[in-house]
Amino acid sequence: MSSVIETDRHQAPLIIRINELDNVAIVANDGGLPAGTELADGPPLTEWVPQGHKVALQRIEAGEAVVRYGVAIGYARQPLAPGCWVHEGLLEMPASPQLDNLPMATTAPPDQPPLEGHTFMGYRNADGSVGTRNILGITTTVQCVASVLEHAVERIRREVLAAYPNVDDVVALNHTYGCGVAIDAPDAPIPIRTVRNLARNPNLGGQTMVVSLGCEKLQPDRLLSGEGFEQSDAEQWVVRLQEHQGFGEMLDAIVAMARQKLAVLNERRREPCPLSGLVVGVQCGGSDAFSGVTANPAIGHATDLLVRAGATVLFSEVTEVRDGIHLLTARAANRDVARQLIEQMAWYDDYLAGGGVDRSANTTPGNKRGGLSNIVEKALGSIVKSGTQPISGVIPPGERVRVAGLSFAATPASDFICGTLQLAAGMNVHMFSTGRGTPYGLAMAPVLKVATRNALAQSWHDLMDINAGQVAMGEASIEEVGRQMFESVIATASGRRTWTERWGLKNDLALFNPAPVT
Amino acid sequence: MSSVIETDRHQAPLIIRINELDNVAIVANDGGLPAGTELADGPPLTEWVPQGHKVALQRIEAGEAVVRYGVAIGYARQPLAPGCWVHEGLLEMPASPQLDNLPMATTAPPDQPPLEGHTFMGYRNADGSVGTRNILGITTTVQCVASVLEHAVERIRREVLAAYPNVDDVVALNHTYGCGVAIDAPDAPIPIRTVRNLARNPNLGGQTMVVSLGCEKLQPDRLLSGEGFEQSDAEQWVVRLQEHQGFGEMLDAIVAMARQKLAVLNERRREPCPLSGLVVGVQCGGSDAFSGVTANPAIGHATDLLVRAGATVLFSEVTEVRDGIHLLTARAANRDVARQLIEQMAWYDDYLAGGGVDRSANTTPGNKRGGLSNIVEKALGSIVKSGTQPISGVIPPGERVRVAGLSFAATPASDFICGTLQLAAGMNVHMFSTGRGTPYGLAMAPVLKVATRNALAQSWHDLMDINAGQVAMGEASIEEVGRQMFESVIATASGRRTWTERWGLKNDLALFNPAPVT
Ligand SMILES: [Ca+2]
Ligand SMILES: [Ca+2]
Ligand SMILES: [Ca+2]
Ligand SMILES: [Ca+2]
Ligand SMILES: [Ca+2]
Repeated sequence: MSSVIETDRHQAPLIIRINELDNVAIVANDGGLPAGTELADGPPLTEWVPQGHKVALQRIEAGEAVVRYGVAIGYARQPLAPGCWVHEGLLEMPASPQLDNLPMATTAPPDQPPLEGHTFMGYRNADGSVGTRNILGITTTVQCVASVLEHAVERIRREVLAAYPNVDDVVALNHTYGCGVAIDAPDAPIPIRTVRNLARNPNLGGQTMVVSLGCEKLQPDRLLSGEGFEQSDAEQWVVRLQEHQGFGEMLDAIVAMARQKLAVLNERRREPCPLSGLVVGVQCGGSDAFSGVTANPAIGHATDLLVRAGATVLFSEVTEVRDGIHLLTARAANRDVARQLIEQMAWYDDYLAGGGVDRSANTTPGNKRGGLSNIVEKALGSIVKSGTQPISGVIPPGERVRVAGLSFAATPASDFICGTLQLAAGMNVHMFSTGRGTPYGLAMAPVLKVATRNALAQSWHDLMDINAGQVAMGEASIEEVGRQMFESVIATASGRRTWTERWGLKNDLALFNPAPVT
Repeated sequence: MSSVIETDRHQAPLIIRINELDNVAIVANDGGLPAGTELADGPPLTEWVPQGHKVALQRIEAGEAVVRYGVAIGYARQPLAPGCWVHEGLLEMPASPQLDNLPMATTAPPDQPPLEGHTFMGYRNADGSVGTRNILGITTTVQCVASVLEHAVERIRREVLAAYPNVDDVVALNHTYGCGVAIDAPDAPIPIRTVRNLARNPNLGGQTMVVSLGCEKLQPDRLLSGEGFEQSDAEQWVVRLQEHQGFGEMLDAIVAMARQKLAVLNERRREPCPLSGLVVGVQCGGSDAFSGVTANPAIGHATDLLVRAGATVLFSEVTEVRDGIHLLTARAANRDVARQLIEQMAWYDDYLAGGGVDRSANTTPGNKRGGLSNIVEKALGSIVKSGTQPISGVIPPGERVRVAGLSFAATPASDFICGTLQLAAGMNVHMFSTGRGTPYGLAMAPVLKVATRNALAQSWHDLMDINAGQVAMGEASIEEVGRQMFESVIATASGRRTWTERWGLKNDLALFNPAPVT
């Protein structure tokens, strides 16, 4: 991808064209550009074009492809004059790529050497994973216990935590699963393994304890079974509320067990670790047309650097890659990975069809106001977060990452569901880009927030960690911002706090449960 | 229903038979009864029978019906000897009643006079509804704002609320809907109207304000449209986070608007109101075999008293009435109501089938350990909460109650989803029975918790408001406990605090979203 950015002066008319095949570019200036504006590299505007929206660089006939990222993002519904505003109403959306005739592992990997010698300061775990935070996790088998656990956590924070200064936080893994659900439904393994694997996140140090009610469907032995759990050991660390005499005793039991776990966690110390201990999840949310030209390409560059340095990177959001799946199957490291990508797309196609919708249900009013005409344009701007390295693995929703390098973690694009599933996959640092702005934060891992525009970075000055808006203004290159992200990930993994950590913005977990409730 | 309860002495063997047609009874004694136990009204036990479990009162041949509540709850898989333990492994479950040939409004209403002269002390609302609490509700269009709103609510509680002493609480109506969802899917109206109608709950006094992000799918004008909202007025009471300069300003904006709303709410006073202002939701959760013989029949008696006194009562839990639907269609006030009951059953049958399960997915390990063999037995014990009055209305999930008297609010049985939908329907007092025990509580309405057994009432002495276990021990009649519930509902509606209110146990809202996420 070559970027052509006109950047002489900040006030001068600026348009951004991503690929030389593109017959549209987007307007970069705050407030858009008025009719009659002369462009250095394009036709004069025939009408006002809002910021982030597309202008036709040449005449486009009715039925002809409107090309961005070098790809048809739609077909003109009427002839489009040079200099006109190419808004969503003028575009017919192309069909999704068929899944039965895709290029399989055909792209040669880029010729880039490994990056040697980088380390971060992390907490080594017994299972070989590495924590970037030192958190006591208290998980739950069922939603019924949530309010009791919240009181217990509040008491631990207020009365207990100060005695264990090496522990960063105590987090309740509350969720809405466990009972009142069809627990033997074909799709029930997704939420069950998600809850199980959340408890194994590297930032919880292998010391997660469990609060159970007693009569729920998701019994502790079912939650704690499977790979990675020593059954006999896990069973010791369960508080069952129905075995206790009233509310006061329940609280005491949880707090007493938490003290034992905190004592163990408090002995841990950060030590230098190779980047193979990093599991970085990348995501976008509240996207605009700049997401795909500033923040996401810079994240893509950071992804490449991280992968070359030995880290694991997870990209996700099925409905935002579906329309570019041909680009991903081509980049699969082998045909088996390509097939797994296709399997995940097919499952999601069916899931959406079962609910009477398709992938176009993804886009939001904010996306459209921000200049993203449809899911195809949004997808192309989302996929660039994955950089250019080969795709080495595919992680079905709720499962753990298995291979180093770049993996596709199949998740909904819904921000908190995606973040929750990436945490279950083992994520210990999150990088999240936003154009419209969201106060998104997680309790279990630090979130680096990336603004796609200068205006957002300025207005949300105390929520955005990185400003990729400089790219649009020519103040920094994609490579420079990507390098800055790489360094921020290492510093954050080593303990530097992000904005959402400073404010304590911790959104609840959000499970993906495609099965019925009862 | 006639109860035959053997109650000579507390230590004496006790079995409970509900209906004279029953060929099984359940063991009431703590710890169950050992082999060889002589019963006053039944055969000697051939084996140990746990508490709450069934004993065969006579020989039952293979294939013969096992009868409880006067209804076949299953068919014997092998010959059953008198005095044996009739556990779930010995029963073949009957099929659900077909929906196409049901009795329609055939039961004559009981010949009982209205109960005159009862009032409670409530907060009258402009729309004619009555609050039992005086709460500032802050609703949300999207999950993205939840963590910011939680900080704002914490600050309001800490710094602001004391200046408005007539206001009971401030509650964030956080939920997991609003974006990352298929908002135009056929089933999307369910979660959307639920969020809308939650904001109209009588306990929020018509003063609910809204926190929006800005770019979400569920825009404030979509959330706040429809019956009951003056669009022009509602629009003034929206804080959009994306319009504010950073986290500090967002908090300030929410707190400033909350002060205006609190000033209005603080002027409200309780006054005597007829019981037509009560909307009582009844539910059970964590059920055992005693639910259907102690707590639920007593709730049924309270339901009858409330309906006769002019109140509205909502019963719910589709999967727990499905197997007794023939009993409900017969009790419908007219054929139209019966048809609406059948529609809701058919919708849920389809919903479950779409996920590859059926209504038998309802029962839990706790239910079975507690003696409930299958969903048929559980359903018969659940339906008794509805008492004996005619069913006057049916409320589809997320809609508001429209008629006084007894209504079926169609909801999943899942405790928090049911409670959330009953709140959306307009519930201002909740009555909740539990046998195994759950710390269930809600933020928006008081919850009266009813224990089915003395042992639970004793062990959870600081969580259970009413003990129906006395019924099994012969210490009180169903009618006496039902009358006590009726009086407790009135006292609670008038301001008396329940146990979960005293502890501040407030579970999060749980939406019913049968549509896909994206
Ligand atoms: Ca995204
Ligand atoms: Ca997302
Ligand atoms: Ca919460
Ligand atoms: Ca129930
Ligand atoms: Ca329930």
